[in-house]
Amino acid sequence: MILRKTSLDPLELAVEETLFHLGNGYLGIRGNFEEGYPDIVPTIRGSYINGFHDTVQVHYEEKLYGFPEVAQRMVNLPDAQTLKLRINGEVFSMFEGEVLEYERYLDTELGHSVRQIRWKSPQGKVSKIIFLRMVSFLRKELFFTICEVIPEEGGLVEMESGINCAVTNYTNPSDPRVASTPIKHIWYDNAELLHDGGLVRCHTGSSGLHLAICQRHVHSPVGKVRSKQTENGFVTKTKVELPPGGVARLEKYTVFADSRRVADPGLEVLLAIEPCLQAGSEDLLHEQAGYLKNFWKASRVQIEGSEEANEGMAFNLFGLLQSAGRDAISNVAAKGLSGEGYEGHYFWDTEVYIFPFFLYTQPNMARRLLDYRYGILDGARQHAHNMGHNKGALYPWRTITGSECSTYFPAGSAQYHITGDVANACMQYYIMTGDLPYMAEKGAEILLETARLWLDAGHYDRQGRFCIDSVTGPDEYTCIVNNNYYTNIVAAHNLRNAVEIYDALKEKEWHLPVADRIDFEEDELAEFTRAAEAIHLPYDEKLGIHCQDDSFLDKPMWDFEKTSKSKYPLLLHYHPLYLYRHQVCKQADTVLAHMLYGEDVEKEIVRRSFEYYEKITTHDSSLSKCVFSIMAARLGMKEKAFHYYHSTLRTDLDNTHGNTMQGIHTANMGGAYLALVLGFAGMRVQDDHLRFDFTLPDDWQGFQFNLWFKGSLLRITAEHKDAHIQLVMGSAVSVQVEGKVYSIDGIHSFQGVVK
Amino acid sequence: MILRKTSLDPLELAVEETLFHLGNGYLGIRGNFEEGYPDIVPTIRGSYINGFHDTVQVHYEEKLYGFPEVAQRMVNLPDAQTLKLRINGEVFSMFEGEVLEYERYLDTELGHSVRQIRWKSPQGKVSKIIFLRMVSFLRKELFFTICEVIPEEGGLVEMESGINCAVTNYTNPSDPRVASTPIKHIWYDNAELLHDGGLVRCHTGSSGLHLAICQRHVHSPVGKVRSKQTENGFVTKTKVELPPGGVARLEKYTVFADSRRVADPGLEVLLAIEPCLQAGSEDLLHEQAGYLKNFWKASRVQIEGSEEANEGMAFNLFGLLQSAGRDAISNVAAKGLSGEGYEGHYFWDTEVYIFPFFLYTQPNMARRLLDYRYGILDGARQHAHNMGHNKGALYPWRTITGSECSTYFPAGSAQYHITGDVANACMQYYIMTGDLPYMAEKGAEILLETARLWLDAGHYDRQGRFCIDSVTGPDEYTCIVNNNYYTNIVAAHNLRNAVEIYDALKEKEWHLPVADRIDFEEDELAEFTRAAEAIHLPYDEKLGIHCQDDSFLDKPMWDFEKTSKSKYPLLLHYHPLYLYRHQVCKQADTVLAHMLYGEDVEKEIVRRSFEYYEKITTHDSSLSKCVFSIMAARLGMKEKAFHYYHSTLRTDLDNTHGNTMQGIHTANMGGAYLALVLGFAGMRVQDDHLRFDFTLPDDWQGFQFNLWFKGSLLRITAEHKDAHIQLVMGSAVSVQVEGKVYSIDGIHSFQGVVK
Repeated sequence: MILRKTSLDPLELAVEETLFHLGNGYLGIRGNFEEGYPDIVPTIRGSYINGFHDTVQVHYEEKLYGFPEVAQRMVNLPDAQTLKLRINGEVFSMFEGEVLEYERYLDTELGHSVRQIRWKSPQGKVSKIIFLRMVSFLRKELFFTICEVIPEEGGLVEMESGINCAVTNYTNPSDPRVASTPIKHIWYDNAELLHDGGLVRCHTGSSGLHLAICQRHVHSPVGKVRSKQTENGFVTKTKVELPPGGVARLEKYTVFADSRRVADPGLEVLLAIEPCLQAGSEDLLHEQAGYLKNFWKASRVQIEGSEEANEGMAFNLFGLLQSAGRDAISNVAAKGLSGEGYEGHYFWDTEVYIFPFFLYTQPNMARRLLDYRYGILDGARQHAHNMGHNKGALYPWRTITGSECSTYFPAGSAQYHITGDVANACMQYYIMTGDLPYMAEKGAEILLETARLWLDAGHYDRQGRFCIDSVTGPDEYTCIVNNNYYTNIVAAHNLRNAVEIYDALKEKEWHLPVADRIDFEEDELAEFTRAAEAIHLPYDEKLGIHCQDDSFLDKPMWDFEKTSKSKYPLLLHYHPLYLYRHQVCKQADTVLAHMLYGEDVEKEIVRRSFEYYEKITTHDSSLSKCVFSIMAARLGMKEKAFHYYHSTLRTDLDNTHGNTMQGIHTANMGGAYLALVLGFAGMRVQDDHLRFDFTLPDDWQGFQFNLWFKGSLLRITAEHKDAHIQLVMGSAVSVQVEGKVYSIDGIHSFQGVVK
Repeated sequence: MILRKTSLDPLELAVEETLFHLGNGYLGIRGNFEEGYPDIVPTIRGSYINGFHDTVQVHYEEKLYGFPEVAQRMVNLPDAQTLKLRINGEVFSMFEGEVLEYERYLDTELGHSVRQIRWKSPQGKVSKIIFLRMVSFLRKELFFTICEVIPEEGGLVEMESGINCAVTNYTNPSDPRVASTPIKHIWYDNAELLHDGGLVRCHTGSSGLHLAICQRHVHSPVGKVRSKQTENGFVTKTKVELPPGGVARLEKYTVFADSRRVADPGLEVLLAIEPCLQAGSEDLLHEQAGYLKNFWKASRVQIEGSEEANEGMAFNLFGLLQSAGRDAISNVAAKGLSGEGYEGHYFWDTEVYIFPFFLYTQPNMARRLLDYRYGILDGARQHAHNMGHNKGALYPWRTITGSECSTYFPAGSAQYHITGDVANACMQYYIMTGDLPYMAEKGAEILLETARLWLDAGHYDRQGRFCIDSVTGPDEYTCIVNNNYYTNIVAAHNLRNAVEIYDALKEKEWHLPVADRIDFEEDELAEFTRAAEAIHLPYDEKLGIHCQDDSFLDKPMWDFEKTSKSKYPLLLHYHPLYLYRHQVCKQADTVLAHMLYGEDVEKEIVRRSFEYYEKITTHDSSLSKCVFSIMAARLGMKEKAFHYYHSTLRTDLDNTHGNTMQGIHTANMGGAYLALVLGFAGMRVQDDHLRFDFTLPDDWQGFQFNLWFKGSLLRITAEHKDAHIQLVMGSAVSVQVEGKVYSIDGIHSFQGVVK
């Protein structure tokens, strides 16, 4: 049980809506109060289906060639979570009468949230009200609510449920991180009434997608039930008379289906809801708990000595589980399914920050995320073409179905590195799983097509260095630069990995179908290798660090002393050009490059880079601190690592970026996980084994997590001084600790290796 | 008489509308046929008042800090030029019946255009119809038309005139060079009928500006006149019966007034139209011719041996005269008052390409253009502030009233050089006129505030060089770069000129009021000088040329061989990033820097730069070829100079950029003038004298132009081998020819100096 709240703060409710959201990778429901709030309370009442989007015509006053003309936007679905209560004629609201007792929590073991209230009505009557909500992991279409009302003195309980299609998306024209154009996305088609609820059909305004929602209600005791159509859906009302101490219980089953997944959503929901009703609440709760037990078996991260850290970790990992699409046509949106920030788009966040968690603990889910990228490879080819390239695939910076939705290219399409990030995820999948057949089927095509992109995007300069100009690295406070270190190194790896995978396939004689599909000539391999070897990695002799890009270190430092706290995040207070003109980083860039690709870099260079860039990084992006935590841990700065880790871990729990109202920060959640596994456990893949360098924060007694590697499951435990690595499942695994390689078959303890 | 047309090409009419437009710096009327065209004929029916604009809310899907929220747009005024004719019941149209004779021309000596047609109606009746149009240079409000209809067999002539407020601006969402949002800008208020016409009032939708137009008609013979209100204005209809050979003549007086200039436009037009009517057509035509006689006295450029060149030059200089605002609240729009391209905005085009023409031949008009920049100095201060600067003035890239209207900052606000261009115009004004009082009053404030901007925008790098990062130079195919050579040199001159002017004022003890107004501390002067001296001017040792910017020469060359003709202009066919990534120039950049500030640069460097950049310049901007012409002439490449000159000269006449329909290219017009004066005459100001280096294209026998310098008027004549310089007015002037300085007092001939 986490997130336990016992008091009501109206101004925090919009944030709580995000924190208490429930999702299953397909469907997401924000944690709005079923009964609603007074109008004055800030709220975003929302529910979403991953990848279910409308399109928006993008208007530019000055439209240049290749600017996207259509953007996609995840739509806020019809409201199906509302449930209004009237007890003995008085409308239940936590903002009227008196809340005598209150408890709200999220149970990440059982997979549901609970809100229970002991309430004294304005007329002085006391009732107990309990809501339990769950979005099923096993039945992706199902949102399930149980409501119990217990008026102490008995009496009349009325409930009003239903579906309302009069909904809009949240917009704010002044914040580049949320949608700006208010547009009606959901258009109501019709409602059919059922004896215990109804079925609503609607469609999107421009994208031509259809949605059906079926809702049915099981009451006990069975009272008077009446459904009727409304202007935008239907309502189902019930009335029941209770004796003193009697319980009015409602089980509310809501099932969603959309035309991106099924041909006839209306039929689908009718078919899908039936077995849910037949299963009933007990079975549904039970199977949900079973699913999570299984999930946590591989994915749990346990920290000894800090309940706060455990809560944070459970929240984050549960959040990722709730966010990740499993159907290959959806991915992990920047805000998961918890809110509308970044319009439900998928970014590089997935591959760099989130994918590793699934890769290490749920490799099948990781593979589905790669399937998504494979599915939009044609979109990436088209995008490359739009951007002027004759060959290769360039992944769009933000998208739902594969077309570029970034309307500000300097911090959007210019971030070519996403293409290398996707390729690297492919390669990591292969390294961790050894799944060569998958490479033959899909992975190699991604790696080869992305490698081709770099050849076309880059060029050899007069000194023979392979350069990549006019791109933007991860740091969005410095855009359109030449030879961004991160981009160049990601490209070099992409090029090398393409060759490596091709060679591996060739060894098995599996290479021809891939080569055929993409007209690949083996001569290209030599070009890949040549470019990778000649890659220009800017380095500053004087400072002894890698330069973020060719000119970054020549710019003046940002004046941090003169920048008041209210000016952060800087992007909301300074023109981009002013930011570009200074040494100031929104987020880890070169430091991230060292985290991901720093194994061959001299440790002192890595240390100096860390120290240099740390001073000028604002962490205005939530993707930053986790990287600094990892690198601090690897560099032996234990306290600093912990400081960054703690801040990362609780980004949403403490709303440190002030925008959790618009959704969770999924990349940050993945980053918190990585901070532990790659930072404190110092895990790295080297050749055919795993390497660990353990660091234990002083506040903790130890930590433990599991890891899949080449089909074997390991349990890694760090304690005060010693570490233990146990083979939980599968065959022996090679592990390197303090320079020595061990074969783990059973359990192995390492004395005194934890710093 | 120029632009003579004797045949009708329906697809060329939209271009002719631009070529035959008439304007006076305040009012501009496109050369639409009075009677209109069939619907199928492409047309932009337009009339404009310089700086009379509406505002448009700018929407961005991703709006970052400092992006302009409101853009200004010159509005298409109510249509007052329409005049429909019916002769013996048949509607006159050049697209029906048969055009027996046709002639249309523009008379740049008399200042009017004429269209005369001998027309056989569908029913076989022959009439002569003559239209004469003029926009008065002396009465800025007045648009005047004479129409004569002569039905050979006599009969009934009906005329329908009036004003119609149902007008829109031209939009095209796919071309960044014209407005993209269709919005109703003109809102009709009311019409009052007069016995011979009417008065219409209207206002703009968002900018709160008011406009009144009064139109009155004088008929001879006086027939039956009837005016009536319409939904959007009024019409005045007349009927007259003519004997065979009789002439129905209409004089149509239309007067405009707007609330940016007068408090009560309605009253103003009533007052202003009266003296026009009293003057009558003969006097109006006469005074117009007198004005132009005076104008051409100083401004004429005469070329011996090429009527084509004379026509082009007359067209261009007359075009500039028609375009330039004289009232300090307006300037020269990119398309003058001839069309809606670039939405009536003022750019750097004025100062670099157009201002010198006025400065050399009509210095009072040049001063008014500076007055405009002084008038928007507060806007420039505000813009500097928006862009993050603590001090100084940054001129907006495109504007009407001083606020930035550029919505694509990489090729907009990032062009900081405009600020130095304005400062340089100030300095040139001082150098050419010696008008120090003007500097005390206005010029010094511009120079000091712009100098401050550079100090704030630039910084010293680790080698102590003064660098300016993240700006865009004139070449819009390479945006957001460090140390654009042009920008840096323009900044250095700005900084030095500020010091020079301050010192000059101080010598007269005129400096204190300026310093007071802007809180100027004399310590700042040393900072100006220090930065100017330390300016970083990137130079490539290997190529022996100045680099367009720090990284330009390291990029790969554009593949011109593989680029088909249909792909030009490149900006309409390639994503900006793809352009930025290559060595390809839209226009002169470093070459322009050498033209303006190349006196101290070794001639061989200038030559190599010319040759290098020439190869990679597409001249997709109309601001380019004139610069190459000037530099070719200075470098002794006579044929090349002539080639570029010819192409520049006839940009609009031959519609070489394919977009003359949207208006004339005023900068190019100024450039054609400069190509002669600075190119073929090789004029430069050095210290206190003028230097000339004459080149005569082989096709010509000679050329002649006049020039004001420090209050004296010179006439410069170049012939086959000899040149003559004559003092026409004022006191003796020092002139340098072939290295020797002469004092010109009377006429001086230079033997054999013309190359």
